[in-house]
Amino acid sequence: MTQGGYDPAIAIRIETPDDPRIAAYHAIRERDLVGREGRFIAEGKVVLNVLFSARRFAVESALILEQRLPGMAETLALAPAAMPVYVASQAVMDAIAGFHIHRGVLALGRCRAEDDPEEMLAGLPADALVVALVGISNHDNMGAIFRNAAAFEADAVLIDPSCCDPLYRKAIRVSVGAALKVPFARIADEAALVDMLARHGFRQFALSPSGSRAVDTVNRDGRTALYLGTEGAGLPPALMARMETVRIAMSQDFDSLNVAAASAVALHRLWRER
Amino acid sequence: MTQGGYDPAIAIRIETPDDPRIAAYHAIRERDLVGREGRFIAEGKVVLNVLFSARRFAVESALILEQRLPGMAETLALAPAAMPVYVASQAVMDAIAGFHIHRGVLALGRCRAEDDPEEMLAGLPADALVVALVGISNHDNMGAIFRNAAAFEADAVLIDPSCCDPLYRKAIRVSVGAALKVPFARIADEAALVDMLARHGFRQFALSPSGSRAVDTVNRDGRTALYLGTEGAGLPPALMARMETVRIAMSQDFDSLNVAAASAVALHRLWRER
Repeated sequence: MTQGGYDPAIAIRIETPDDPRIAAYHAIRERDLVGREGRFIAEGKVVLNVLFSARRFAVESALILEQRLPGMAETLALAPAAMPVYVASQAVMDAIAGFHIHRGVLALGRCRAEDDPEEMLAGLPADALVVALVGISNHDNMGAIFRNAAAFEADAVLIDPSCCDPLYRKAIRVSVGAALKVPFARIADEAALVDMLARHGFRQFALSPSGSRAVDTVNRDGRTALYLGTEGAGLPPALMARMETVRIAMSQDFDSLNVAAASAVALHRLWRER
Repeated sequence: MTQGGYDPAIAIRIETPDDPRIAAYHAIRERDLVGREGRFIAEGKVVLNVLFSARRFAVESALILEQRLPGMAETLALAPAAMPVYVASQAVMDAIAGFHIHRGVLALGRCRAEDDPEEMLAGLPADALVVALVGISNHDNMGAIFRNAAAFEADAVLIDPSCCDPLYRKAIRVSVGAALKVPFARIADEAALVDMLARHGFRQFALSPSGSRAVDTVNRDGRTALYLGTEGAGLPPALMARMETVRIAMSQDFDSLNVAAASAVALHRLWRER
């Protein structure tokens, strides 16, 4: 046995790219585009550490490049005992994925069930911080917002139907695993979300360059929700009309911040040490 | 004459991709990799607005997709009067660039001269804010840091030899033109930089997850410099030993922020309304 209790000797060697046991890893990029119906690909050691520690997800298997296997023992020791670990040469791995897999550390996760936003909100603490996303369609921004949400200890993220999938491979990677760590739920529409958050006692703030006061002036007491909107168009005016609006103080003569950068600044201002 | 004083009728039509007048736009991505010896490609209307307004750069030409030309009159009116405007069909434009040019708005800029860091520092105001970058090798991060530097009115950016080029096409695009707006200069090595900033009266701070106090506690009075280092490795210990270190207060149990997000938080904290 190696350090961490995982024995690399039990890894299952994959000799051909068409082995049915690793079919879910085939043509990764093409699959990204059509979706995986509740499954997702996690990449890299740091992300796998988060995935194996997360309660919200099942893990179906891992696929590791042969030369990376020895260094993965501690990470794999965190995985469910029954999870198969497949190992392949660089050539077989590249043929499976359909491109050159540089890092060589992959796992296939599965959502146990979609989280229900009502239940999620009901279970949050009295001083919870929630991030509500409307129309975030870029996977880099989505991943970066989750990374910032984790860094500044947001309790949950709520996502409207026009947002992209936080479990898209690139979003998970950019989030450094935070998309697997910070609980999130999808909501049916924004109007219902505002009502739901109000019912659960949340004070709601819309972040916008046109916000009526600086986010620095918000005294976070009790449950707090921060809305972030699409870069460019911003949050819908009808939504902003229903809550307090806040802005990030900055130069008057430059284009506003990228939404991921804005989330970092605003969530930092709302962060409270636990 | 159209609004803004630019007449689209004077645009020069390019009929074949091998027209020598647009040779500098050939195989854009391949050229990106080898560099353009003081020249750079700016893309998109917002970026061209910044380029045409910047004193630090000459503009050699613009290359515009034919259907975009009518909407570019106001932007092109900002360009130097003698600058040729080339116009091409989508097919010719794609053949020139070597890939599908979706936006269809390009210009070729040129550095007049490398800025001298000593002269640049000497010319800054008494309350100047300078960003010093060490080992920022990712163009997305470089562009995002410039965007944040512009939003929070940093007066200049100093760049060490291990940083990537802020005038790389993607860095300019991610910066939304800020890489053309915020003055920057390259320095020979970090040790010399610390001496130079000290000589010019700058109080110097290294941003690091291990910083000794929160950046929120910095009272910015007089000239201030903020150092940002490579993601992962961070700033060199020898450099950090020579100045005050600051951190961004955040969760103890998550990977640190991306350097671009960290720059947004820290520069926001150091921003002072002018």
